[in-house]
Amino acid sequence: MAIGRLAIVGTGLMGASVGLAAKRHGVPHVTGFDPDPNALAAAAERGAVDEPVPSLTDAVVDAELTVVAVPVSELPVQVAAVLAATTENSAVTDVGSTKGSACTAALGSSRFIGGHPVCGSDARGPSHASADLFDGATWFLTPVQETDSEHYRLVHAFVSELGAVPVAIDPHAHDRLVALTSHLPHALANLLVNQAGSNWIEGHDPLDAAGGSLRDMTRVAGANPAIWVDIFLENRAALTEALAEHRRRLDRLSEALATGDAGFLARWIGEASGYRRRMLSEAYPDPGALQRVRVHVPDRPGILAGITVALGAARINIEDFELQHLSPERGGTLTLLITGEKQAARAAELLESQGYGVVVSPVLEDS
Amino acid sequence: MAIGRLAIVGTGLMGASVGLAAKRHGVPHVTGFDPDPNALAAAAERGAVDEPVPSLTDAVVDAELTVVAVPVSELPVQVAAVLAATTENSAVTDVGSTKGSACTAALGSSRFIGGHPVCGSDARGPSHASADLFDGATWFLTPVQETDSEHYRLVHAFVSELGAVPVAIDPHAHDRLVALTSHLPHALANLLVNQAGSNWIEGHDPLDAAGGSLRDMTRVAGANPAIWVDIFLENRAALTEALAEHRRRLDRLSEALATGDAGFLARWIGEASGYRRRMLSEAYPDPGALQRVRVHVPDRPGILAGITVALGAARINIEDFELQHLSPERGGTLTLLITGEKQAARAAELLESQGYGVVVSPVLEDS
Repeated sequence: MAIGRLAIVGTGLMGASVGLAAKRHGVPHVTGFDPDPNALAAAAERGAVDEPVPSLTDAVVDAELTVVAVPVSELPVQVAAVLAATTENSAVTDVGSTKGSACTAALGSSRFIGGHPVCGSDARGPSHASADLFDGATWFLTPVQETDSEHYRLVHAFVSELGAVPVAIDPHAHDRLVALTSHLPHALANLLVNQAGSNWIEGHDPLDAAGGSLRDMTRVAGANPAIWVDIFLENRAALTEALAEHRRRLDRLSEALATGDAGFLARWIGEASGYRRRMLSEAYPDPGALQRVRVHVPDRPGILAGITVALGAARINIEDFELQHLSPERGGTLTLLITGEKQAARAAELLESQGYGVVVSPVLEDS
Repeated sequence: MAIGRLAIVGTGLMGASVGLAAKRHGVPHVTGFDPDPNALAAAAERGAVDEPVPSLTDAVVDAELTVVAVPVSELPVQVAAVLAATTENSAVTDVGSTKGSACTAALGSSRFIGGHPVCGSDARGPSHASADLFDGATWFLTPVQETDSEHYRLVHAFVSELGAVPVAIDPHAHDRLVALTSHLPHALANLLVNQAGSNWIEGHDPLDAAGGSLRDMTRVAGANPAIWVDIFLENRAALTEALAEHRRRLDRLSEALATGDAGFLARWIGEASGYRRRMLSEAYPDPGALQRVRVHVPDRPGILAGITVALGAARINIEDFELQHLSPERGGTLTLLITGEKQAARAAELLESQGYGVVVSPVLEDS
């Protein structure tokens, strides 16, 4: 890698993962600073940091690149501090999930390029860090007009080397984008589980009766408040705008229900189906050919191995794979996504020969 | 099984699956009727129906139990028709996902017990039917004051024999419950994907930038309009009520964002976290001990088999298992849920010895 000296400010999960990934890809020297001496010691022990140092200035003074990996609420102060402590030859970036305020704090510095790796890990602390956290992840970079092209090239090359896919975007556009793709979904997950959880209906707990849709849609509910209160507040302008549009769409739906407007509902579901197809086409070459193979399996060890080995031996490529627990007594549901009706039929046959009942259906309905 | 003669009215996916499950569990004679002769022939060919007949009356006349498995919008008419064509010794049930209108149509008949198996299959047609569709599923039954206890016992025993778990509930309470656990989540999934899909931001398609939360939360979006328009309209009273409460909660959240009320946000996320823990405790004996093990894997056959066999050989029980595709070039993310930090650490060690990078984190944050 082109970088000789890397500095990391904040050696929690993200910072330590950047350090581990950088070391894996051959960065010779990584200095690290964290106000929490335990976090710093743990990162050093894991090999994420070669040289733990007692101050921010010590960490960044000779670095070619500094990665600021602190909570989003502290980003503006820390980014400004790093810029003040470093010279013209030194590039600075961060890994916060909102970008507007950090970029504002950088005051149009040519050396600061905001960054946001989208790797969805909610864990805290260097003990959960991984060199592979960024493999295949989108990593937003937010160059602005003042950005120096050499510094940008350096940061771009760095995140590529770590295994991520850099995507350039304006910082405020970034914040509006993640409001839609992450903050609004998180908000809706919390709203939904709080509503379902607090409405017992004649002795029935809705959470006990949860089908797959409620489970899928509340998976990110209750995510780490220490992180998410900051994110919601930092990005409240964009999130408020997204919530307002959500409310308008909600009102339109309520109106269609009130008037029994089946035509609206059919178009509305059809539109959703189209967007879903577009989303799937990012991950799969031919989403229209995807088949869902559902199998009910008992709760015991070895089941998964038996199934995956049989399918692997038959050279059936499993695109997606999900085992979802119902309960220890009731076992679970295994869902495979397989491309092509013939392949799916072969998979079903194989599983039926192992004694399982199998339901095959297309992922996308033909409409 | 105690039932000698079963009738099925409507031999699509659900009706044919009931037939297959009944045959598997030894019901001697199953008659079937469907207005679509192709659906009826396909169900007979699959062995879901012993005797396909040309009219509803022919199907139900001698049946001890009739299962009405028609689209929800046709339920009231068909249930009334079956009751008119059968005598005092004959019980009648259905499998529709809303219950109020079918039960109303039964006019307090002692012989009709509404039913709703929660098995989340969105596929259509007898060709996708499975004898195992109901294994482990909750199957709501809606007895009312007038219900004859012998008939109720028969239906209760029947759905238990099919592998489902019968849960009795008032029909209107049922509809309010599923509005929360299924119809509101489906509505929010459609609203969310339509909003994200129609808001390109400075050339960026939010659907391309979708992280795990947006993907999870739109998985049920665009579900079969032929089924869902009916469900939304049939249950519009309860769904409208649920949407109104959602809007109130949304307004409260917007207010907290506007005033920067971090205390509200922290309590609100904490509440969600508690409900999520309660939901997980249904599926897992000790949700607090659950660890999430995340692995980035390339897109090639045999990966799953290698991993599951290694974990199986080490007697590590995988609670849940998910492989999610990023793209053919970027591979995918494998997520395992494993109970206990020690077990999870052993799993991580094994996977690291296979060359994978692993991130382990608790599913539920300690708060």
